[in-house]
Amino acid sequence: MRDFLPADKAKREHALATIRGTYAAHGFDEIETPVMEDAARLHSGLGGDNEKLAFGVLRRGLDADAVARAAASGDLASLTDLGLRFDLTVPLARFYATHRADLPVVFKSIQIAPVWRAERPQKGRYRQFMQCDIDIIGDASPLAEVELITATAATLSALGLTGLRIRINHRAILRKLVETWSIAQTDYERALITIDKEDKIGADGVVAELVELGLLDASAAPAAAADLAGLPNDGWGLLDAQEPAPWLDVEAYRQLLAIREAVAVAAPDMALVFSHNLVRGMGYYTGPIFEIEHPGLGYSLGGGGRYDGMIGRFLGTDVPATGFSIGFERIVDLIEVPAQAASDAVVLVHDADAPPSALIAVKTELVASGKRVRLERRTKNVKALLERAAESGYGSFAFVTAATASADQLEFKPLTARH
Amino acid sequence: MRDFLPADKAKREHALATIRGTYAAHGFDEIETPVMEDAARLHSGLGGDNEKLAFGVLRRGLDADAVARAAASGDLASLTDLGLRFDLTVPLARFYATHRADLPVVFKSIQIAPVWRAERPQKGRYRQFMQCDIDIIGDASPLAEVELITATAATLSALGLTGLRIRINHRAILRKLVETWSIAQTDYERALITIDKEDKIGADGVVAELVELGLLDASAAPAAAADLAGLPNDGWGLLDAQEPAPWLDVEAYRQLLAIREAVAVAAPDMALVFSHNLVRGMGYYTGPIFEIEHPGLGYSLGGGGRYDGMIGRFLGTDVPATGFSIGFERIVDLIEVPAQAASDAVVLVHDADAPPSALIAVKTELVASGKRVRLERRTKNVKALLERAAESGYGSFAFVTAATASADQLEFKPLTARH
Repeated sequence: MRDFLPADKAKREHALATIRGTYAAHGFDEIETPVMEDAARLHSGLGGDNEKLAFGVLRRGLDADAVARAAASGDLASLTDLGLRFDLTVPLARFYATHRADLPVVFKSIQIAPVWRAERPQKGRYRQFMQCDIDIIGDASPLAEVELITATAATLSALGLTGLRIRINHRAILRKLVETWSIAQTDYERALITIDKEDKIGADGVVAELVELGLLDASAAPAAAADLAGLPNDGWGLLDAQEPAPWLDVEAYRQLLAIREAVAVAAPDMALVFSHNLVRGMGYYTGPIFEIEHPGLGYSLGGGGRYDGMIGRFLGTDVPATGFSIGFERIVDLIEVPAQAASDAVVLVHDADAPPSALIAVKTELVASGKRVRLERRTKNVKALLERAAESGYGSFAFVTAATASADQLEFKPLTARH
Repeated sequence: MRDFLPADKAKREHALATIRGTYAAHGFDEIETPVMEDAARLHSGLGGDNEKLAFGVLRRGLDADAVARAAASGDLASLTDLGLRFDLTVPLARFYATHRADLPVVFKSIQIAPVWRAERPQKGRYRQFMQCDIDIIGDASPLAEVELITATAATLSALGLTGLRIRINHRAILRKLVETWSIAQTDYERALITIDKEDKIGADGVVAELVELGLLDASAAPAAAADLAGLPNDGWGLLDAQEPAPWLDVEAYRQLLAIREAVAVAAPDMALVFSHNLVRGMGYYTGPIFEIEHPGLGYSLGGGGRYDGMIGRFLGTDVPATGFSIGFERIVDLIEVPAQAASDAVVLVHDADAPPSALIAVKTELVASGKRVRLERRTKNVKALLERAAESGYGSFAFVTAATASADQLEFKPLTARH
């Protein structure tokens, strides 16, 4: 968990405003849910491994007897009734189930909010971090994915990020691939963990590991290795051959082709790449899945996918849903904040004995004219004071004295930051 | 704890952007601290009664043995190591102590963030609510109060709130008043609780209650009642008489007069009223204290004051500080959001079979031209769909078909909200 000083906070707020504004322009509506959710809901099995990382909130009004009973029964979960959310997807599903009657038939949501995970301290991992999610609930068609990917591409572009690409796959394609290899249904999730490693260990490595884990029969290994061999680099063109590969779910692939065609129209700068080995870890994905890749970075900048079964867990009836989350903490480290309109930000340096009414009159006059104004009492080291102000984005300064009657009398001089 | 649907969330974000922008123009810099603080810090005695309302976070990795030991020893606090902040002042003091070397000599902070209190459910009280605080650390002069009050008045005005007034008092004035009545130092805080009630129970009621509580000697009651009698309505003018009242701390009152004079220059529409019986509950206040009052509302819309001793509790050396907090949840209920630029928000109604690439091409064209665009698949009840969009701030709509090649071909018709 981190404190944010003014320069960092300003950068974050700039990025958040850009994200918020772009998503809103694309027809998404922002909602907010409470930071704490019922502990039972957070531990309903939809959050995968993240559930184990949820911070629990101690039940209010517990006495020593109740605590002793919890210890004796081993039911330590009874000590907590609430927890901090570890993602924004479980709260969204709960929100939608609660408020469905007040929402459009197809609901396009924005959520921009912190989440918490009790991670072990390590570089680049935070226990509190921002998530920026868009989701479309109630649309089973690939138009939903097109809108998600287009809005995300526009947002990344508005943030000044270039050279990114989005990898895309479909859970139906993964399922058929695994089925083709006669891997048992019950081993599906375990097999995906291995397939996910193909970019690191190669196609042969994947097949070898599946055999080693006992998921794939050794006799099927050569055919499986052949399936993975010779796939085109950008993944497209699998239907160009006269006969599609037997492992390919053609219908799902055609969906991806339709998404690709539409995204190419709306976001021609964003490369969309079919990756048969993109898995995305969460068990709840059911359809197209996608991930933002930055060349030269060893981690993704966001991702998402279709999760048609999850809302039904809270609502009782299934509602199609798909979402895209961008990795705010990683992205904010990559972007540059455009130079502030420093000419509009001025520092007024005054002596300690200048009367407050005279100072505030001049300040008010300048604020009313559209300036950002910082009053600074003169210190022994004025140079250091001014350098610090310049680093905070202030562009000029003037001295105010007891004799200053109006802003017209001020002589502004430019400020230059040391770095 | 509440969910916020799109209309409410949009209103809140509008208000927050206004508050953030106005405070920044007045030379304050925004910071952010983590939602969780060390439990020991939250329970250091600075938070007053709010400490009892802090949500505690269960220590990770507790086993049944550790829980049993906590129960046996009665030390239930050992179950938690972190807690959710109940205000933004304790975190600010901790933040300043940590980062002092990286902050300006006089640091003017903005904090806009949620806090949590385990309140019993009741109307108008929330367990999660936003606080918007500005604080000035490192300036012992009344210029700090002038800047706080001026910036707050400008923010309330920018939010469209009128007819407010700010009550002001000084802890030194309260202290001398209580001393004049020979109330014991140790009874000071208890006496303040009674003085705080004067607007409800009258001056005679205050004196009677002080006697009843054994804080004021009955023989001193007539003189005390006389001290409170005949004070001017707006509180000012107490130095107009030849001899100031013996209970009045003249130096502190002069400070308030200086603040009043400067605020009148910068915020002539904001009435500042001296209230000798304004107390503000927190024990840490040391100087000027203030509260926003709305005529006709039975509660304040914000308040603050000087707390020169608190930073020292974390830093070791005293640093002067003063802050002003506005009651966001109460204020957001009072304001009207300016009508959105609905003409810039358009709905495109399409048939289910329209190709995604055609739809997204038209949408992208309109977004690029500065519009906010919502794609809506045609439903049986188009009228209801359009009414809902109008309520969400969309101003016009058009039908898109498979034949639509560009936005030029669209025929936009105005949308009118039902209410």
